[in-house]
Amino acid sequence: MEESIKTRQWQLAHKPRHEPQLSGPEQTFKLAEVDLPEPKDDEVLLKLLSYSNDPAQRGWIDPDIPAERLYVPPVKIGQPMSAFGLAEVVESKSSKFSKGDTVTAPTGWTEYAIVKAGSCQPAKDLPSGLSKTHYLGALGLTGLTAYFGLTEVGQTTKDDVVVVSGAAGATGMMAVQIAKKIIGSKKVIGIAGTDEKCRWVEKLGADVCLNYKSKSFAEDLKKETPAPDGYASVFYDNVGGEILDLTLTRMGSGGRIIACGAISSYNTSAERTTGLKNWFEIIIMRLKAQGFIVLDYANKFGQAIELFNKSLQDGKLTLDESSETVVKTPFEDVPKTWLKLFEGSNQGKLVTQLV
Amino acid sequence: MEESIKTRQWQLAHKPRHEPQLSGPEQTFKLAEVDLPEPKDDEVLLKLLSYSNDPAQRGWIDPDIPAERLYVPPVKIGQPMSAFGLAEVVESKSSKFSKGDTVTAPTGWTEYAIVKAGSCQPAKDLPSGLSKTHYLGALGLTGLTAYFGLTEVGQTTKDDVVVVSGAAGATGMMAVQIAKKIIGSKKVIGIAGTDEKCRWVEKLGADVCLNYKSKSFAEDLKKETPAPDGYASVFYDNVGGEILDLTLTRMGSGGRIIACGAISSYNTSAERTTGLKNWFEIIIMRLKAQGFIVLDYANKFGQAIELFNKSLQDGKLTLDESSETVVKTPFEDVPKTWLKLFEGSNQGKLVTQLV
Repeated sequence: MEESIKTRQWQLAHKPRHEPQLSGPEQTFKLAEVDLPEPKDDEVLLKLLSYSNDPAQRGWIDPDIPAERLYVPPVKIGQPMSAFGLAEVVESKSSKFSKGDTVTAPTGWTEYAIVKAGSCQPAKDLPSGLSKTHYLGALGLTGLTAYFGLTEVGQTTKDDVVVVSGAAGATGMMAVQIAKKIIGSKKVIGIAGTDEKCRWVEKLGADVCLNYKSKSFAEDLKKETPAPDGYASVFYDNVGGEILDLTLTRMGSGGRIIACGAISSYNTSAERTTGLKNWFEIIIMRLKAQGFIVLDYANKFGQAIELFNKSLQDGKLTLDESSETVVKTPFEDVPKTWLKLFEGSNQGKLVTQLV
Repeated sequence: MEESIKTRQWQLAHKPRHEPQLSGPEQTFKLAEVDLPEPKDDEVLLKLLSYSNDPAQRGWIDPDIPAERLYVPPVKIGQPMSAFGLAEVVESKSSKFSKGDTVTAPTGWTEYAIVKAGSCQPAKDLPSGLSKTHYLGALGLTGLTAYFGLTEVGQTTKDDVVVVSGAAGATGMMAVQIAKKIIGSKKVIGIAGTDEKCRWVEKLGADVCLNYKSKSFAEDLKKETPAPDGYASVFYDNVGGEILDLTLTRMGSGGRIIACGAISSYNTSAERTTGLKNWFEIIIMRLKAQGFIVLDYANKFGQAIELFNKSLQDGKLTLDESSETVVKTPFEDVPKTWLKLFEGSNQGKLVTQLV
């Protein structure tokens, strides 16, 4: 009998109704050490290099969302926290992968993981020495979410005035670039939380990016969407809350709201928001608001990734070190790094790099 | 020179931010008497018989809705209040209509009106002695709104579980019947404000109708939409507010919200609502919420009216005296009758019959 592999993992200890807690009696996650069995046929043993940090993870541990209202199974108390990871294959019982390969996979917050080979995606070398962590973001589900949200849900075209909230975030920075440089929408307005982020979003291609923390934000948005010809026609919303409420009043007849996220309210109790006041705009302006999950378009992923690669070559998509906030993190601090998502401190994809 | 015709009219005096006022310094409407000119070519002179009372009228006098956000021009101070009416032709300068004909037209709150013949619709005799006032509701724009909301916006089919709020109202009672008896949806759940209305809505064809004023309403709705197979898939919403908030939590993946109205909040100040708390459900359940105006489907009106007539004959559509609340009203009380809309006291279409 071979020796078993030990791994540390972060398990769910308490489902947070408000902010997840790093300590105290309602500490959200607890560190544990477990023995992993040997990988079986068609399984691989992975050593984790990095984790993807995603707002959606907050929903998987929310005590107020019934299991049947999640498209990903909720994390149970005592289970390792779910997460996507970039990892190295250290042992393979599958013909698909060899020792030394790099893959992305749903591994959870663990140092080592045993995963079915079928749920791993190869992470091949990228051109220009681009970090493979981009497979967790721009060139992975995050980028695909931006792409299918805009094209399939929003039916976005050259003729659209597109507003993107959370524009400096992982999904937002892709939505801005796809709308402006790939689709060619006539105007793209970003919304972000610092002037520095805003200038970066403009560098990525946005015609303008507005700081929602500025006192003149409501006026600024109004000025950029003059009635009636300059009204926004597409709103890619990652944020929800007050920014959504305000943007609803700046949308023209027949506008489409791509309801991607509501990070402003994920930690604000069971009630979740102070309340959206402008639902009425949906009625009078004939707006369409739609939620979606990227997995609905899985049969078109290959096509989209091909387009992304071509766009990288054509300069219609810019990815570099600035497109990620990579936080070097000892395993003990994995939850702490994840919480940065809700502080709005990351620019581009927030990646946990294990050290 | 011929003698001019005098008419009384109700003009807009003050745009109400909250409840419209029948008296006092902020009285919403004022009674005036004006001289009408002679009808010109292609115009008709009408004597009003009845008015249609529509929640949408509230929007036309709201000080907080900019003109460019209304598909009908807002009423200006000093102008007669806009309204649809059923009227008799007393003089015609058009070959389309003769003296004595009955028509529906956008006349405003006036005793006599001069209107372009092109904006009048003939109101022919109905079978079984059905009152012509139904042309203002079930067999007019109200019924068409219910029909195109369900079919075009909601893409409603036999397989849907349909919830209709304001089910005893003019649009709701048509939505219930069209969903259950014309489309044949497998389950139709009405929501109304009294037990008496609920029993009437069930008589019209709803599988069940729930009283939202009942203490057990939230539980009742949950019981009628068991997770996950019994979840609602279509929500025809006339009401907005708390009923919308609750129903969002009972909708299954891919559900459609036909955003027709929000009468619960039309009089509740500039802020309009206490705030919708469950926007997040749109995201996690991939819901689609869409506003619309019936005029977008004008090219299909003839077809729909034909279907309504056939359905009346087949018993798939029931219209009788109970489908209207006709309020006999002296001209002095026209605004008072209109305000009943917001009390929720009418069953079916609220019609003002001038006496």
